[in-house]
Amino acid sequence: MEKLPHALIHPVKSLNLLSRAEIEGLTSSRRDLYEVFRNCALAILHTDSDKDDAAEIYAHYSDFEIHLLQQPRGVRLELINAPAQAFVDGRMIYGIQEHLFSALRDIVFTDYKITGGQEPPLSSEQATNTVFRILRNAGVVRPDLQPQLVVCWGGHAIPRQEYDYAKQVGYELGLRGLDIVTGCGIGAMKGPMKGAAVGHAKQQIKNGRYIGISEPGIIASESPNAIVNELVIMPDIEKRLEAFVRLAHTIIVFPGGVGTVEEVLYLLSILMYPGNENAVPLVFAGMDECSEYFAQLEEFLVVSLGPEVRNYYQVITGQPDEVGRMVRQAVTGVHDQRRKTHQAYYYNWDLKIDSSLQEPFVPTHENMAGLNLSRDLPGHELASQLRKAFSGLVAGNVKAFGIEQVKRHGPYQLRGDPELLHAMDKLLQMLVEEGRMKLGENQANYKPCYQLQ
Amino acid sequence: MEKLPHALIHPVKSLNLLSRAEIEGLTSSRRDLYEVFRNCALAILHTDSDKDDAAEIYAHYSDFEIHLLQQPRGVRLELINAPAQAFVDGRMIYGIQEHLFSALRDIVFTDYKITGGQEPPLSSEQATNTVFRILRNAGVVRPDLQPQLVVCWGGHAIPRQEYDYAKQVGYELGLRGLDIVTGCGIGAMKGPMKGAAVGHAKQQIKNGRYIGISEPGIIASESPNAIVNELVIMPDIEKRLEAFVRLAHTIIVFPGGVGTVEEVLYLLSILMYPGNENAVPLVFAGMDECSEYFAQLEEFLVVSLGPEVRNYYQVITGQPDEVGRMVRQAVTGVHDQRRKTHQAYYYNWDLKIDSSLQEPFVPTHENMAGLNLSRDLPGHELASQLRKAFSGLVAGNVKAFGIEQVKRHGPYQLRGDPELLHAMDKLLQMLVEEGRMKLGENQANYKPCYQLQ
Amino acid sequence: MEKLPHALIHPVKSLNLLSRAEIEGLTSSRRDLYEVFRNCALAILHTDSDKDDAAEIYAHYSDFEIHLLQQPRGVRLELINAPAQAFVDGRMIYGIQEHLFSALRDIVFTDYKITGGQEPPLSSEQATNTVFRILRNAGVVRPDLQPQLVVCWGGHAIPRQEYDYAKQVGYELGLRGLDIVTGCGIGAMKGPMKGAAVGHAKQQIKNGRYIGISEPGIIASESPNAIVNELVIMPDIEKRLEAFVRLAHTIIVFPGGVGTVEEVLYLLSILMYPGNENAVPLVFAGMDECSEYFAQLEEFLVVSLGPEVRNYYQVITGQPDEVGRMVRQAVTGVHDQRRKTHQAYYYNWDLKIDSSLQEPFVPTHENMAGLNLSRDLPGHELASQLRKAFSGLVAGNVKAFGIEQVKRHGPYQLRGDPELLHAMDKLLQMLVEEGRMKLGENQANYKPCYQLQ
Amino acid sequence: MEKLPHALIHPVKSLNLLSRAEIEGLTSSRRDLYEVFRNCALAILHTDSDKDDAAEIYAHYSDFEIHLLQQPRGVRLELINAPAQAFVDGRMIYGIQEHLFSALRDIVFTDYKITGGQEPPLSSEQATNTVFRILRNAGVVRPDLQPQLVVCWGGHAIPRQEYDYAKQVGYELGLRGLDIVTGCGIGAMKGPMKGAAVGHAKQQIKNGRYIGISEPGIIASESPNAIVNELVIMPDIEKRLEAFVRLAHTIIVFPGGVGTVEEVLYLLSILMYPGNENAVPLVFAGMDECSEYFAQLEEFLVVSLGPEVRNYYQVITGQPDEVGRMVRQAVTGVHDQRRKTHQAYYYNWDLKIDSSLQEPFVPTHENMAGLNLSRDLPGHELASQLRKAFSGLVAGNVKAFGIEQVKRHGPYQLRGDPELLHAMDKLLQMLVEEGRMKLGENQANYKPCYQLQ
Repeated sequence: MEKLPHALIHPVKSLNLLSRAEIEGLTSSRRDLYEVFRNCALAILHTDSDKDDAAEIYAHYSDFEIHLLQQPRGVRLELINAPAQAFVDGRMIYGIQEHLFSALRDIVFTDYKITGGQEPPLSSEQATNTVFRILRNAGVVRPDLQPQLVVCWGGHAIPRQEYDYAKQVGYELGLRGLDIVTGCGIGAMKGPMKGAAVGHAKQQIKNGRYIGISEPGIIASESPNAIVNELVIMPDIEKRLEAFVRLAHTIIVFPGGVGTVEEVLYLLSILMYPGNENAVPLVFAGMDECSEYFAQLEEFLVVSLGPEVRNYYQVITGQPDEVGRMVRQAVTGVHDQRRKTHQAYYYNWDLKIDSSLQEPFVPTHENMAGLNLSRDLPGHELASQLRKAFSGLVAGNVKAFGIEQVKRHGPYQLRGDPELLHAMDKLLQMLVEEGRMKLGENQANYKPCYQLQ
Repeated sequence: MEKLPHALIHPVKSLNLLSRAEIEGLTSSRRDLYEVFRNCALAILHTDSDKDDAAEIYAHYSDFEIHLLQQPRGVRLELINAPAQAFVDGRMIYGIQEHLFSALRDIVFTDYKITGGQEPPLSSEQATNTVFRILRNAGVVRPDLQPQLVVCWGGHAIPRQEYDYAKQVGYELGLRGLDIVTGCGIGAMKGPMKGAAVGHAKQQIKNGRYIGISEPGIIASESPNAIVNELVIMPDIEKRLEAFVRLAHTIIVFPGGVGTVEEVLYLLSILMYPGNENAVPLVFAGMDECSEYFAQLEEFLVVSLGPEVRNYYQVITGQPDEVGRMVRQAVTGVHDQRRKTHQAYYYNWDLKIDSSLQEPFVPTHENMAGLNLSRDLPGHELASQLRKAFSGLVAGNVKAFGIEQVKRHGPYQLRGDPELLHAMDKLLQMLVEEGRMKLGENQANYKPCYQLQ
Repeated sequence: MEKLPHALIHPVKSLNLLSRAEIEGLTSSRRDLYEVFRNCALAILHTDSDKDDAAEIYAHYSDFEIHLLQQPRGVRLELINAPAQAFVDGRMIYGIQEHLFSALRDIVFTDYKITGGQEPPLSSEQATNTVFRILRNAGVVRPDLQPQLVVCWGGHAIPRQEYDYAKQVGYELGLRGLDIVTGCGIGAMKGPMKGAAVGHAKQQIKNGRYIGISEPGIIASESPNAIVNELVIMPDIEKRLEAFVRLAHTIIVFPGGVGTVEEVLYLLSILMYPGNENAVPLVFAGMDECSEYFAQLEEFLVVSLGPEVRNYYQVITGQPDEVGRMVRQAVTGVHDQRRKTHQAYYYNWDLKIDSSLQEPFVPTHENMAGLNLSRDLPGHELASQLRKAFSGLVAGNVKAFGIEQVKRHGPYQLRGDPELLHAMDKLLQMLVEEGRMKLGENQANYKPCYQLQ
Repeated sequence: MEKLPHALIHPVKSLNLLSRAEIEGLTSSRRDLYEVFRNCALAILHTDSDKDDAAEIYAHYSDFEIHLLQQPRGVRLELINAPAQAFVDGRMIYGIQEHLFSALRDIVFTDYKITGGQEPPLSSEQATNTVFRILRNAGVVRPDLQPQLVVCWGGHAIPRQEYDYAKQVGYELGLRGLDIVTGCGIGAMKGPMKGAAVGHAKQQIKNGRYIGISEPGIIASESPNAIVNELVIMPDIEKRLEAFVRLAHTIIVFPGGVGTVEEVLYLLSILMYPGNENAVPLVFAGMDECSEYFAQLEEFLVVSLGPEVRNYYQVITGQPDEVGRMVRQAVTGVHDQRRKTHQAYYYNWDLKIDSSLQEPFVPTHENMAGLNLSRDLPGHELASQLRKAFSGLVAGNVKAFGIEQVKRHGPYQLRGDPELLHAMDKLLQMLVEEGRMKLGENQANYKPCYQLQ
């Protein structure tokens, strides 16, 4: 992990016009904003690494600095002790340069234009508006394009064959003119983009979109991969998830760990909300060998949310070209429906997202113990409760706050319907056995951070 | 003045992505914002007319309506009883369509992003920031361009030969790759643009810029001419003037009436402010026959601001090609200086504008009588006082509020240094004699709206 | 008529890649080709002049030289003693620069690719192919565009009001998205382009086409006007005329002199050819005051070609907007028909042009006397004979060869049907009286170069 | 190898404007030209296959037909029984579509513009001109670009690791803004392109060039890979080789078989020609394991051409990033030199290529036996003789004509300097042992097609 002592970078296409007030916001007098930007910048520069331990990265580059300079043609960035891998023969790789300025753009915009004027908590409408405005400012919502955004979710720590499968699926999507949206990192987030890039090249599509949506808390462990050509930093996890579903014309979920299950539950909570039916086609896809994975996942979903949950997704294993055709068809269906109902192509305003999904869930032991995991709840409410539970499990596994909580107070205590809890436990066991809990983890030592009661 | 009963318009390149909240702001529940937009839209559609009486236009088109419709690819505008001259064979002229959406963009942006979050009165820094942010949002400040903006001021009601002269000057500017910024209307605002368009065409410059900067109160009497390809609606007169001087790389003033003198005084107040010396080159230009006009103007300036005022401008009559060369040189000088001092090319942040020039001046009799027109004041302060005086004269002549005031309370009473007042009166006499007080005015009936004491 | 001693010019978008063999063809060893290029270049640089006397221009600039230099990025042109009006502050106007390289491109292409390999005389098919290949090489035939080319013919020495009328018509065409093709010079060739440029600007059409088609023998007296953005130099008059009619989606004829009548006869000979009916809509347009002109023209046409000649054109005077609508409709009709019949939009292959119209007519006294001006001939044949007669009259009036012939052998002797000859004489009288015979001519001294027998 | 019964294809960016005469040249009346086009088209459609046996492909698709249709916007292609792999969901992949029309363009151009007017044999200058004109017509020589073309040669039947190495080298070239030129097929021709595409993507270079240069006799066994975005079909092998060296700003040779050795000898014959020194930097590159390969190649070169041959190339193994840096430096050196000497960037006119290298070598037994493989010859002459010898070996191994000759008359007899022949034999043995003689070959059965005497 070499460092480059000094570099001066100019903007590419994103924001390079800052007002004086905005520039001042990023200097020493406002350390909070500066810190967010510096850390995002570091994560971006640390691209294509197999490290995903944020703390380690931050420690190694503790002497990294980034400064804004005002120049006749807009701002420049001055970097001190930046990761050397972001440069070729002393010049920063252009795509990374672009990511840097995208981060700057979003952090400035979020602070000045939005957070600046708003008193939290936001109403549900305000949250939705905020997500829209950040995406619009980033140029991600575009009225000139037809529906063609496929959101891909799944694990970042996946075996090579699963990565290759995701890449093949991406290739088939790219051949069919579809664009990719992911969470920015490696694994199931990079594979589809890489495949799509080849598909696009064969079709001589020069403006293929590879949209990465991140947030300050996650970007270090999921550094934007180099294919991402539109990077957006949302202010928090909930807005990031909302951005995914409002942009998506179809969502593919590849196998992943607890984080992926959390995302599935988040999405099902929305899809099962009365009025949202069929608003976003959902496809579970994996290599032939993953059929057991999806069977287990489905078992858990059926036990907890009832057999009608099966109406909200399709499962397909193997056959990447078939996935391509199916998704192309689903996207075309969305296109037709939006046109018929005069809904926007670029942002799904009509989707109802309950405010329980828009608010941050803080995984204290009290909050975890207070979850209502009962099958008596309506499907969308139970899905929302379950997604919080899994959110807590993700925190207990890999996030500083959650790990600390568990260290101090012991495992989280989850209460609820025994059958449901049993199915949940079984699913989690499978994830452990398949090594899907954390990259590079020594599974023998795995200790669950929860107890079911 | 025919009307088209119904038309549906889609956006061109400006804003067509509005959030739900923004759209709601433009509907009946928020009549104030809607009214501003409707009136600007009407003024824009009423292009290329020789009418400049706003009241008459608004009365004639009292049944004009404009509505926002949400569509899959962004908003559409629905027009009822729009001026027919904006259409060819039933389709709106593209440039006008673009102006409509520019107005929408600026009005929405100003209301939501800026006024929304700010408590008036703004500090001087806030005002400057606000002007910048509106211009940035409109895409008018552009870091990718070299300094090449020439602001042209002057009368809109001018004789044909003066119009032709302004056009020839514009032609010479266009041949030299310079772009034009004006106040949008006809006369000295259209001539330079039209000439520059021919110059650009001969140089095969396809992206020549013809920037029109207007504001809701003036747009109806100065409908954007059809050459304008970047239209910005600033929220008030003071921000409009600030936009001009912070964008300008050189300013040309053609002969005009009291409004033009007001602008000259505004600019001199800035240029004479300590530290601002030579920040913006200023050129007075007119046909050979206008040398008397400039002599009188200079006499007034020298009497009031002292002979050193001559250091802040150059006068040239006739010789359009010489004007072209001189301005090209001045712009190059600005370019060099900004590069040397690392100042932005696109916005003159370093120019100090006193807050007395940023605040609206309300021409009540009390305010007018309270002006301090004394030669003991420092030059920039006296220039500021004088500009307020002329602002009041403009109001008393052509603006609803001022005319009403004068009708009710009699002529404005101006106090001050007798020599100064005498020079001022002489200048005003000359403007009346040359028919520069108002378009289509019957000069025999002219009654001054002021008395000097 | 100042000169610039030395200038070095680089190419813009046209040809700048010449093979070694092509470059050698333009050096001293091949004086013929060099001379053609030098003279065209001189004519191009002599733009916007009111001189149209080729001999005078060539004499004044007898020390003008132009040389090709090979450089790393293609050829450069070195100019010695070039007309100063082609430059602004020492740099050549871009549009003129482009014209220079267009001339180079066409002269090289014609010599190397076409004339090089062909033994004259060409068959009719070869001539048509040759015209196509020159236009294709020049990028003028373009498959990506819809039919929208309006060819405008008419006099270059016309009164100001007729020029303004042509400009207004051009404006209405431009507003309707139509492009202009003319013979390059001033008058009725410049007016429509200038008007269309304004119309295009209002519609924000940035790629409006102003195509000028010239040939080496005429370019000096009809220097390309500065609006032309696609210049083509055809090798001879006949190919130039063929280029016009095969490109045209509609042709407008404004009033002009004998040259214009020659063009009308050329076109009628084609339109009256069996099978060509309605292949190219033809509109005669002029200001209200020109109705007498068109009446006389029609009388001549009806006497010579019979009343059915009226089926091949429409006459409209005044009402530029009505001309715009009519032409737009005609072009749309051509579009529909070509689509239905699978004919190319960009080149009218199916039009039959008789080889008598493709071969040069040399106006010797013998050839003129040998013309068969008999009403017994089929319409298209008589029109072809008449066009030769008028071609001879043009030569006798303004071309070196013709003037010399007439000086030596006395007026041309024309034989034929007395009524026809009488109508012809009457038409010519009218042209003389209206001063349409030659720019700047002293009409009192006019001596006809023909005698009718 | 499925077939699609019927498809109608429209042009992308290449030629779609054909004259009537050109279209007629591609119909039944001119079977020769049609056959060439049909076979190239079939090879192009048969992309991404691992088949490289032309005869087998042609046999399988014996019912494939391709027809030209004239349409309003230019030609369309109608395909009968085309390879299904060229299509996705019934629509042809865009890149392949483009290749089809590139082939059409080159075959039409070559026949009509060049071969049409020339009597073979061409002089050396004519050959060089012809190569230039084909490349110019294809848009491959471009004056607007800086020197950045890297020609990559090497085997198409190479092991996976060598392919990966070539890809890594391509990646490093792409990161440094270099473009790739190859012979179009798989292996060392595809690897560098694929790698460069990733490098370009990271640098957000959207107009990376992947130029494939083929010829009708080889295209079937080296189907253009899908990354190629500029395809040129040269009329014969010699012009194809000349195109490579005149375009190249540096040449990399990866390990390959006899064909690759032939290319090396061709290039060395040029580089050793007096006056050509250092005209084209040459780099031998391969994975670490290839050092033996290059040692053997060098041994052969030194024995035959003398130790000074080492001055004409550099060898590097492993370290793809070092290859990237070295080649970038070499290209920059070429840039500097061309600028200094005013030579064209886009085509190396000054390179002297002896006519013995421009004429086809027909590998009859008589011609092979007549080669003068003597070390007494000047280096460039001996290299030329040797390249003919290897050309014969390629033919005897894989080309219909050569195989037939050998079947009929026994192995080719090569005479010459014993030491040289011995070194040659040793080199050939090594190629056999390393399995570099032919894709999919059963090496045990390998029988040399030559005898050294």
